Amino acid sequence: MTIYIVNPNSTQAVTDGIDRSVDPMRPFSPVPIEARTLAEGPPGIETQAHVDGVVGPLLSHCAALEDTASAFVVACYSDPGLAALREQSARPVLGIAEASILTAMTMGQRFGIVSILSRSIPRHMRYVGAMGVMDRLAADMPLELGVLELADRDRTFERLRTVGTRLRDEAMADVLILGCAGMTAYCADLEDHLGLPVVEPCRAAAAMAIGRVALEKTN
Amino acid sequence: MTIYIVNPNSTQAVTDGIDRSVDPMRPFSPVPIEARTLAEGPPGIETQAHVDGVVGPLLSHCAALEDTASAFVVACYSDPGLAALREQSARPVLGIAEASILTAMTMGQRFGIVSILSRSIPRHMRYVGAMGVMDRLAADMPLELGVLELADRDRTFERLRTVGTRLRDEAMADVLILGCAGMTAYCADLEDHLGLPVVEPCRAAAAMAIGRVALEKTN
Amino acid sequence: MTIYIVNPNSTQAVTDGIDRSVDPMRPFSPVPIEARTLAEGPPGIETQAHVDGVVGPLLSHCAALEDTASAFVVACYSDPGLAALREQSARPVLGIAEASILTAMTMGQRFGIVSILSRSIPRHMRYVGAMGVMDRLAADMPLELGVLELADRDRTFERLRTVGTRLRDEAMADVLILGCAGMTAYCADLEDHLGLPVVEPCRAAAAMAIGRVALEKTN
Amino acid sequence: MTIYIVNPNSTQAVTDGIDRSVDPMRPFSPVPIEARTLAEGPPGIETQAHVDGVVGPLLSHCAALEDTASAFVVACYSDPGLAALREQSARPVLGIAEASILTAMTMGQRFGIVSILSRSIPRHMRYVGAMGVMDRLAADMPLELGVLELADRDRTFERLRTVGTRLRDEAMADVLILGCAGMTAYCADLEDHLGLPVVEPCRAAAAMAIGRVALEKTN
Amino acid sequence: MTIYIVNPNSTQAVTDGIDRSVDPMRPFSPVPIEARTLAEGPPGIETQAHVDGVVGPLLSHCAALEDTASAFVVACYSDPGLAALREQSARPVLGIAEASILTAMTMGQRFGIVSILSRSIPRHMRYVGAMGVMDRLAADMPLELGVLELADRDRTFERLRTVGTRLRDEAMADVLILGCAGMTAYCADLEDHLGLPVVEPCRAAAAMAIGRVALEKTN
Amino acid sequence: MTIYIVNPNSTQAVTDGIDRSVDPMRPFSPVPIEARTLAEGPPGIETQAHVDGVVGPLLSHCAALEDTASAFVVACYSDPGLAALREQSARPVLGIAEASILTAMTMGQRFGIVSILSRSIPRHMRYVGAMGVMDRLAADMPLELGVLELADRDRTFERLRTVGTRLRDEAMADVLILGCAGMTAYCADLEDHLGLPVVEPCRAAAAMAIGRVALEKTN
Repeated sequence: MTIYIVNPNSTQAVTDGIDRSVDPMRPFSPVPIEARTLAEGPPGIETQAHVDGVVGPLLSHCAALEDTASAFVVACYSDPGLAALREQSARPVLGIAEASILTAMTMGQRFGIVSILSRSIPRHMRYVGAMGVMDRLAADMPLELGVLELADRDRTFERLRTVGTRLRDEAMADVLILGCAGMTAYCADLEDHLGLPVVEPCRAAAAMAIGRVALEKTN
Repeated sequence: MTIYIVNPNSTQAVTDGIDRSVDPMRPFSPVPIEARTLAEGPPGIETQAHVDGVVGPLLSHCAALEDTASAFVVACYSDPGLAALREQSARPVLGIAEASILTAMTMGQRFGIVSILSRSIPRHMRYVGAMGVMDRLAADMPLELGVLELADRDRTFERLRTVGTRLRDEAMADVLILGCAGMTAYCADLEDHLGLPVVEPCRAAAAMAIGRVALEKTN
Repeated sequence: MTIYIVNPNSTQAVTDGIDRSVDPMRPFSPVPIEARTLAEGPPGIETQAHVDGVVGPLLSHCAALEDTASAFVVACYSDPGLAALREQSARPVLGIAEASILTAMTMGQRFGIVSILSRSIPRHMRYVGAMGVMDRLAADMPLELGVLELADRDRTFERLRTVGTRLRDEAMADVLILGCAGMTAYCADLEDHLGLPVVEPCRAAAAMAIGRVALEKTN
Repeated sequence: MTIYIVNPNSTQAVTDGIDRSVDPMRPFSPVPIEARTLAEGPPGIETQAHVDGVVGPLLSHCAALEDTASAFVVACYSDPGLAALREQSARPVLGIAEASILTAMTMGQRFGIVSILSRSIPRHMRYVGAMGVMDRLAADMPLELGVLELADRDRTFERLRTVGTRLRDEAMADVLILGCAGMTAYCADLEDHLGLPVVEPCRAAAAMAIGRVALEKTN
Repeated sequence: MTIYIVNPNSTQAVTDGIDRSVDPMRPFSPVPIEARTLAEGPPGIETQAHVDGVVGPLLSHCAALEDTASAFVVACYSDPGLAALREQSARPVLGIAEASILTAMTMGQRFGIVSILSRSIPRHMRYVGAMGVMDRLAADMPLELGVLELADRDRTFERLRTVGTRLRDEAMADVLILGCAGMTAYCADLEDHLGLPVVEPCRAAAAMAIGRVALEKTN
Repeated sequence: MTIYIVNPNSTQAVTDGIDRSVDPMRPFSPVPIEARTLAEGPPGIETQAHVDGVVGPLLSHCAALEDTASAFVVACYSDPGLAALREQSARPVLGIAEASILTAMTMGQRFGIVSILSRSIPRHMRYVGAMGVMDRLAADMPLELGVLELADRDRTFERLRTVGTRLRDEAMADVLILGCAGMTAYCADLEDHLGLPVVEPCRAAAAMAIGRVALEKTN
């Protein structure tokens, strides 16, 4: 039995980054954790059409894994297919956006979200509204960097510091969430720089999945 | 130029019902109104997987109509693909759930939704939350009748009266919304029986689309 | 039958501006649209006492028009008398504040309101609260220009750009509403400058009224 | 200097009832408390048009009292003219709906409102929304008794018990508010019967006014 | 290193019940799970004074365990001392109320809480409000059984069925939470009877703690 | 009989400041107002552990005063023990945070809170959430001055002006609350400087207590 973390885009490098990100958690998991790539996905999930479009392939992908799955994690910050996969699967199903928000709610009273691009924010706002936790949101602010541009470490970290500082000082956030699976590498440094907890969403969801594997055994 | 009302399920009878429902509005529309069937859709949209699954075909269907479209209406109470179609199209795009809720908000202070089945309700709740209008919702209650069962007029109207009465007297709704495209035929009778305005969602969305066609001309 | 847009202040120039604003919509309306001035109103509606004070004359004015009315639009951003007129009239009744907010909710996820003066904002906030849509509000910010001062085009547009930019970049609005009937002339330019949809409230309400005229025919 | 409690309807018997209701508080007030009738008001305030219509006369009435006023209380559960009177007067201005809700919020976590007629409820809901306290509302339920019918003590108290029990046991209210100035006589008995605190709104507003007279002296 | 679940009341039988409840999770936890009794606590935590009164002893108790703690769980449905313990400890700190609510939010869209006594409900409501998740609450309803009375299995399960059915059918809950550490034994049967997921809060918090132990290793 | 204002920290100078702050209200109170120091409290209440830790001694302190109490006011901006004291006492019980917020809600539509230190803000946010009034909050911003540092008048007033200006102009507050018992001396000057009402919380709570003493006499 395995916790499957499914990256719904087709970029293996993103899956590899997720894999590295959760690697330190493996010794603490009762079951293996496997990061997988959805071959049918687009290279990056940047539009609502991408979000909706990966649901069908994602459901098929996960159906084939159902018998060996301890839990599923959908690893895109739009949580594509989360509700549908919960209807399909008998296993615990977590999404990195939802899990990171629920985790942040135990670490601070107002969470700030750092988004890649401003066009993601309306999508996030619909989701925070659907979750019913808008009163806990400080703000969601963009780096205005595309996924590929995140590779430029100096520029990316400078933007993260700027946006993180605004979230802390203007929007009064006391915990931050990295609103994309691709910012893992900056998490610890940003936390140090800002003096606030910073939630990396893939790890937060993997942690919750580990707990849910244990919880399932009580029923 | 045409207002396209797209039924995202493949059942022509549903499309025909929508067509009849909006027919009295045609003389008042500046452009033709055409009800269309999404051939690639499932016979009925009953699960979240159905909702997400029709988005791709719906986007293609509408892309082919873009040049002749005055506006698009997505005619399923889960508003599948609404956000994606808004990103894709330069035309006004409306969904029957959103439009019926916005319309009900001008007719009463607390709206009640009559759903077909209780399993639709969590999906509706996520949507009402995403719209940020939860404080205006009285309640969402199910008939517990499948789409095909709606054809039994006596039973259906009895359930509508029972559920409508609970929404009015227990949940204190002062306006009701029919939470499915297939209850058009009962709208006027239910309104008479309960003494409350009852919003038929396809008509509400078509009305809003007619207005938006006019609004577009001012920009 | 006619859609009556009633300007509840007594300044004919404002009524003329509304008339010009909705003129391009007339070919798309199934009935004439007539902008009217409430002779008994104050020159401008700037205080809560003005808002409450015009309700009586407005109700009388509209009662006399009831038999020839297809719909009524109250054309002041405080929506004076909206609830009372809905109780009095059997016709669809819309207000430009409510209609512009409901319209903005279909164009973006967080709306920003541009107000003339900061003293209008508490009134708007009570209204947004009464509508139950506070979670969709980004912010409401003032130009700090009186109605007469709006005539100075250069200064007005400069303020609109400044306030619009703050709403977009600080308050994270993705759609703006002009919170006064007197800013019509700047709508398209502001939209171009900011790259966001900008809702002109008289037009939004007229559009909704056009749709509601059609909707009435189905009952 | 005097605390003026203005009954905005023209029925002297209602004013007399208010006078008796607050009479036990007079020895504890630093200034006289005077209940007054707005001669220009309708016999009872039952519609939104009544609410809006009394604002003008109420403002005039209070303007003439300004120099001798310690504070004003508007004594109708729709709080007509409250915002306008606050703009006009330099004195503390309280309304019985707002004051009773704020008081109830210190006595329980979820307040229930007992309304005379169901048609008042949408008006109350708009107000609770404008106050931003919808999450504290358990429910608002009607007696379905007109003001004159309240004089039938047995029937009225039976309805109060029925509605109060529903508010407590179905809507989970832990404090009740009498949503009309005419139910004072039943307050203590209802409290005994239900085992919950019951807020009489004229007294709650008078109490708050007494405190505000003292508070004014600190500035 | 150990996950400490601290029962803040002094009744060892409650601690033993918690211990049995989480026992099936132990093979899936990377560290031991130890249920402990706060000797200084009252026999049961039934009032706000009890809640506040155990915080001091709980903080001391946990301070002494800090060096050997992987995580702390506060095992009382009022989450006494949760915020204070988070300020004191460098370890993950979870409360069974918060954790059960966050877990229920991944299993359904509207959670219902089954409380022991109605007097607990205002306390819960303050807490749900502080968490900012009131829109996700269906209702909180009481069994009206004291802790000792829970031992009468037949009566208790009958009440659970009655209250659970009301939460499902009247309040439209789609997931339930047992609002007390002492109802573990009924969890599975209630789930079967109602056809809804039922969250046992000690297990939910233990599960989340297991995940957080893993998450800590990534920083 | 006496209104007891209990300062739950042990610093007599703070109690003396409260005493001076409410002194002008004494001629308007029907009973004496006595400011008292909780000897068992810490010198200042700066952490959640302080808040929770004073509840026990505060309850004992007030129990001993019950027979001579007209009302109790808890005079710390975290309202420690408010819910517990309400359960214990038969007298009206008010807290300065709750009372100042309820008072501000009658003076403006969006209140801003000026906090001493940023670490108090999450505590305040939990409280505003528990009160269910988050939609009325503009923002809560810190001076970043410790209690002792407040004695430096020039620096403190400069910070108050800066933070107050941000609350007014950036967060769009139209009424401010001093979020600490130790800023009384600056209240009037800040009000003059900003042109907004500023609520001093000890006075607001004393005012409400005076009213409640009168209200009690009606039951």
